[in-house]
Amino acid sequence: MTINSLGLVCSACGLLCLFVFFSQTFSLTSAKYTPDWKSLDSRPLPAWYDEGKFGIFIHWGVFSVPSYISEWFWWYWRGTKPRPTAVKFMLENYRPDFTYADFAADFTTEFYNPDVWADLFNASGARYVVLTTKHHEGFTMWPSSVSFNWNSKDCGPNRDLVGELASAVRSRTDIHLGLYHSLFEWFNPVLRQDEENNFTTKNFVTNKAMPELYEIVNTYKPDVVWSDGDPAPVDYWGSKEFLAWLYNDSPVKDTVVTNDRWGEGTGCKHGGFFTCADRYNPGKLQNHKWENAMTIDKQSWGYRRDANIKDYLSIEEIISTFIETISCGGNMLMNIGPTKDGTIEPVLRSVCADGTFLPTLL
Amino acid sequence: MTINSLGLVCSACGLLCLFVFFSQTFSLTSAKYTPDWKSLDSRPLPAWYDEGKFGIFIHWGVFSVPSYISEWFWWYWRGTKPRPTAVKFMLENYRPDFTYADFAADFTTEFYNPDVWADLFNASGARYVVLTTKHHEGFTMWPSSVSFNWNSKDCGPNRDLVGELASAVRSRTDIHLGLYHSLFEWFNPVLRQDEENNFTTKNFVTNKAMPELYEIVNTYKPDVVWSDGDPAPVDYWGSKEFLAWLYNDSPVKDTVVTNDRWGEGTGCKHGGFFTCADRYNPGKLQNHKWENAMTIDKQSWGYRRDANIKDYLSIEEIISTFIETISCGGNMLMNIGPTKDGTIEPVLRSVCADGTFLPTLL
Amino acid sequence: MTINSLGLVCSACGLLCLFVFFSQTFSLTSAKYTPDWKSLDSRPLPAWYDEGKFGIFIHWGVFSVPSYISEWFWWYWRGTKPRPTAVKFMLENYRPDFTYADFAADFTTEFYNPDVWADLFNASGARYVVLTTKHHEGFTMWPSSVSFNWNSKDCGPNRDLVGELASAVRSRTDIHLGLYHSLFEWFNPVLRQDEENNFTTKNFVTNKAMPELYEIVNTYKPDVVWSDGDPAPVDYWGSKEFLAWLYNDSPVKDTVVTNDRWGEGTGCKHGGFFTCADRYNPGKLQNHKWENAMTIDKQSWGYRRDANIKDYLSIEEIISTFIETISCGGNMLMNIGPTKDGTIEPVLRSVCADGTFLPTLL
Amino acid sequence: MTINSLGLVCSACGLLCLFVFFSQTFSLTSAKYTPDWKSLDSRPLPAWYDEGKFGIFIHWGVFSVPSYISEWFWWYWRGTKPRPTAVKFMLENYRPDFTYADFAADFTTEFYNPDVWADLFNASGARYVVLTTKHHEGFTMWPSSVSFNWNSKDCGPNRDLVGELASAVRSRTDIHLGLYHSLFEWFNPVLRQDEENNFTTKNFVTNKAMPELYEIVNTYKPDVVWSDGDPAPVDYWGSKEFLAWLYNDSPVKDTVVTNDRWGEGTGCKHGGFFTCADRYNPGKLQNHKWENAMTIDKQSWGYRRDANIKDYLSIEEIISTFIETISCGGNMLMNIGPTKDGTIEPVLRSVCADGTFLPTLL
Repeated sequence: MTINSLGLVCSACGLLCLFVFFSQTFSLTSAKYTPDWKSLDSRPLPAWYDEGKFGIFIHWGVFSVPSYISEWFWWYWRGTKPRPTAVKFMLENYRPDFTYADFAADFTTEFYNPDVWADLFNASGARYVVLTTKHHEGFTMWPSSVSFNWNSKDCGPNRDLVGELASAVRSRTDIHLGLYHSLFEWFNPVLRQDEENNFTTKNFVTNKAMPELYEIVNTYKPDVVWSDGDPAPVDYWGSKEFLAWLYNDSPVKDTVVTNDRWGEGTGCKHGGFFTCADRYNPGKLQNHKWENAMTIDKQSWGYRRDANIKDYLSIEEIISTFIETISCGGNMLMNIGPTKDGTIEPVLRSVCADGTFLPTLL
Repeated sequence: MTINSLGLVCSACGLLCLFVFFSQTFSLTSAKYTPDWKSLDSRPLPAWYDEGKFGIFIHWGVFSVPSYISEWFWWYWRGTKPRPTAVKFMLENYRPDFTYADFAADFTTEFYNPDVWADLFNASGARYVVLTTKHHEGFTMWPSSVSFNWNSKDCGPNRDLVGELASAVRSRTDIHLGLYHSLFEWFNPVLRQDEENNFTTKNFVTNKAMPELYEIVNTYKPDVVWSDGDPAPVDYWGSKEFLAWLYNDSPVKDTVVTNDRWGEGTGCKHGGFFTCADRYNPGKLQNHKWENAMTIDKQSWGYRRDANIKDYLSIEEIISTFIETISCGGNMLMNIGPTKDGTIEPVLRSVCADGTFLPTLL
Repeated sequence: MTINSLGLVCSACGLLCLFVFFSQTFSLTSAKYTPDWKSLDSRPLPAWYDEGKFGIFIHWGVFSVPSYISEWFWWYWRGTKPRPTAVKFMLENYRPDFTYADFAADFTTEFYNPDVWADLFNASGARYVVLTTKHHEGFTMWPSSVSFNWNSKDCGPNRDLVGELASAVRSRTDIHLGLYHSLFEWFNPVLRQDEENNFTTKNFVTNKAMPELYEIVNTYKPDVVWSDGDPAPVDYWGSKEFLAWLYNDSPVKDTVVTNDRWGEGTGCKHGGFFTCADRYNPGKLQNHKWENAMTIDKQSWGYRRDANIKDYLSIEEIISTFIETISCGGNMLMNIGPTKDGTIEPVLRSVCADGTFLPTLL
Repeated sequence: MTINSLGLVCSACGLLCLFVFFSQTFSLTSAKYTPDWKSLDSRPLPAWYDEGKFGIFIHWGVFSVPSYISEWFWWYWRGTKPRPTAVKFMLENYRPDFTYADFAADFTTEFYNPDVWADLFNASGARYVVLTTKHHEGFTMWPSSVSFNWNSKDCGPNRDLVGELASAVRSRTDIHLGLYHSLFEWFNPVLRQDEENNFTTKNFVTNKAMPELYEIVNTYKPDVVWSDGDPAPVDYWGSKEFLAWLYNDSPVKDTVVTNDRWGEGTGCKHGGFFTCADRYNPGKLQNHKWENAMTIDKQSWGYRRDANIKDYLSIEEIISTFIETISCGGNMLMNIGPTKDGTIEPVLRSVCADGTFLPTLL
């Protein structure tokens, strides 16, 4: 698969943007940051990230077991407005009292070989990889100390899925490790109680969300902390305090980058690079580093067993998107959804492998 | 089945004890209790309990799925000194990465009919019934607000097992509802962290153990709070504060009774009735109300699929024990272990049914 | 458990019957039998059987997995007139497309220890034990050469359940091994086709029923061949030819006994001992050896998880039945239903153990 | 995806072959065939097949549940020389006593929508589709009357998988239906017994293989009968008699085509079109119609969950193969392996969709 001409994929920003963009320089200082946006936002972005251009996003979790509709399956089935397709799927294929938690026992990951994944990501030319350590379902993909019996060591896989990927990526590649983490959980009653208290209580933050964030940073030393699921005030989440620690004192203070999903109103405004919305692609040069987090499967971030080939972006569309993105100063974070078995299905693998050229286009 | 002669089952205490014992009188006052043992221990025991004599104890939980060795199966399998029998059982019958949490999906309770249970307990002559709302495994048998995805509504049964029993017992019988609750959990990392901190932190108590206790009292209004699993200081658990609330302000302040397992050193010393040790049977008249919590299956509180009939107490032994117990001032709390299906196996049902005579012996 | 007086359990036949009965003498000759009832019925019954008096019947199979309603569960669920209770049970507890064959994977038998069973039967005083090698469901409890992937070696247990019991019984006891075999199968399409052809074709007999009978006799050398499920003409089944071989040439020709269920119209008329109907108990002395095949669970031969203790015969009723039976010249074949785990539940074990006295009453 | 030039994919036969080949003419007569090769081989091939050029092969069955190594998984695991990879896979992922038959309960096919399949095949330009109705595992994908409890209606899917595809293909497309059928079964003891008897007995043929073939022809009226698994003498299988019936009297006598796998020594010699060996591609013009049955996944006919994208033929390789095949007088039967869920994974779907051009190249 070759590209006849870059001219075929014109972008609003053009190559000039690239030039301009690259002329920026960053230097990391030892300045101490204070937990307010003015201070936190003043931190220069570590250079590796802007130079990286291309990352792989991985949505994997218990949702990969039903792997139907999307990674939001639980919400569609049991949320405030259940979707008929989700409800019907459960009625037709499971015993009436089957619960979402029961899916975990079938999250087997028997083919999960993090070395194979690392090699694939490396071959793709990606400079960083971001794994969902916990999506809105609340299931932690590592043996969390605050998610008893709802994590990948206590249920199903019986493995530290995050730790295994971290080791493989580090021992075989120069790819930077990133960790996605959802502050929010759809059904956690502790969070719901805080919400009913108008977030005047912070039990969920104190005992779940923040301990998790500190734990994954201290344990896995990620270079990206990709926060998500933030429909509550910044002061509820305590995000600024976390970021101050992350930038000042954490083991990754010099290399880590973060995004902008740290509480209501932070998107496109505060934090590290801007993600703004899913599949953000502004079409013109931005004066702040941004990221286009997009999916090959246009309908879902998690694997869908019944995905149609037409639901997938073509290589041409991916290249277009990549060029548009980087020419306007963004990085592209391309998402794949592994199966509950731990495989990455061939189309996705193919795209990754064929993607090798992406960074070489520059 | 008849009893030839009460003389066959002589006790150290004799009938006199019964007389003496019954001459005691109690009166409940509206006095306010303070969170210290002197005050708490001064509370008179509500009369119904002493008059009750005979209760049924129910050990039911996820341990009822393997239902092998005992309700301590998880500990025997994965604790600090694994027992070969438990390890072998898992190796021979499950895939290598099967976890204890995976058992929950098979806790089906399809035959659990709390009306049938209530009628059986009523027929037995029992005056109270005590259900394990949470054993050391940490699985809550009600939809706890602090045990996300490790409770009977989120996993396996998809039911409020405690609530259903409470309703059935109340609507069909005059039996008092009691709730067993283990403060301690074998594998909860939050508790382990507190322990490593020498109990100077109380995260587990604040966010798990105590919220649970308040929740079950407020929700199900039990007349017995049967605490267990207390190998940590009283001040760590905050037991005295809980008891003061229970006696002063809870919805069951006038009727509730408690036991003596509220922290290290409280057994046989503080709280409500004394249980001292499992199967406590002092053999002489006690000057404090006590309870003999004992099991029909001599080896286990939880159901064991492979229990031998010889492991069960005979009716004669049960009667002996009962007479010894009540003649020395105790109540007998006789344990049965239902199956993961929600049935009570015929021998246990038979003993319950045949037990009708127990209170009528007096 | 003792019997105060035999007088309490008077029978229509009385002790005299026993005397008369025992005065009969049998001798086995080497005469060759021809495949007609006159010849076959002339064979003297091997003496061990009449002297045996008491046997244990075991109904075990895939029906032990649902273990609901009775061993006829499949028929009640999917037969010509489905029972609402069976249909409801499946709707409430299984995915809509679950099939009966799918139950086999859960027929785990992990606690099946044939040595323990043999010792229990021995302790009961039984002189023979009869196991269902194949019930109407068609599942063979041994690795049949004509029941591919619907037998206990190819599915579920992965064991030769018949062979293991045969070995255990022979190596540890003097108990005679008996094998139950259902000629008929509810849903086997080969049999249904023969039936539609008015039994003018015999594909089912030639390729399934008879090969099985020969195979179990040659392989396990049973002393009882307990035939069942015979709603088709004798000439269809080829029973007379089988019996002639069994009596003349089989490895058990001198010791084997058979019953009377060998085709339409044979009951109470032809074959070996008479079983007539289930729970046959004529109440007067018979001039032909007979057997009372009865169950402890009054409602089912297979294990029912939700059996009520009141559904079980009491020891007193069992003793009555035994005395009535033997005083009128019968043997009693008392049925128990093991669980899908391979355990015999305590009430049934208890009855067996307590039954030791049965033969000693004589 | 377009083809710049046919010249890029030169073949040994060239376009001339196509011309020569197409100049052949066939006519179907009503001649009666006798069960000998001379007569059977004289039957002209129905014209639709030669004109068809391109078919889709579908390997689907219980082997799609493990979907590891290949559709021969059972043999690799339990055959005479077990492969370490297969044995290891089972040890690591299943309980020790798990059996191959137990896989059937997980053959769920919940996403199997034969209309979607039919539309996909139609879009591919295929003129016929061949489904495995029974592979060497013996599992029939329709409710066979001679495969009790080892078929897709009695186990797992609870559906007539063959019948549903037949209806969909016929109601939505002009594609010809073909049915693959394996005479041979690895582990069927009835066949093994015949083999031990040096094929002097024919129990397996009489009661299993031939009834199946007649049943699928009479029920589904296929235009292709694709026989396989024939390592036994022709006279054992009775193939000639079946073919005489098929050509003279079957409901598809005028349209049906067959292949050449009808017993030892028939390959490339007798029957209908020649398949000779898997992936047969002779490279020069043949004087007998032949078929290249090949797979997109170079290592397996059944779906493999862990297939690497490099294990798949590229579109370019497929086109090359197609042109080589048809220019030398062959048809190409391109195989795909659906999942146990009933989906066709995107790469395979993509190839099918992109294959539309194949017949239009001519």
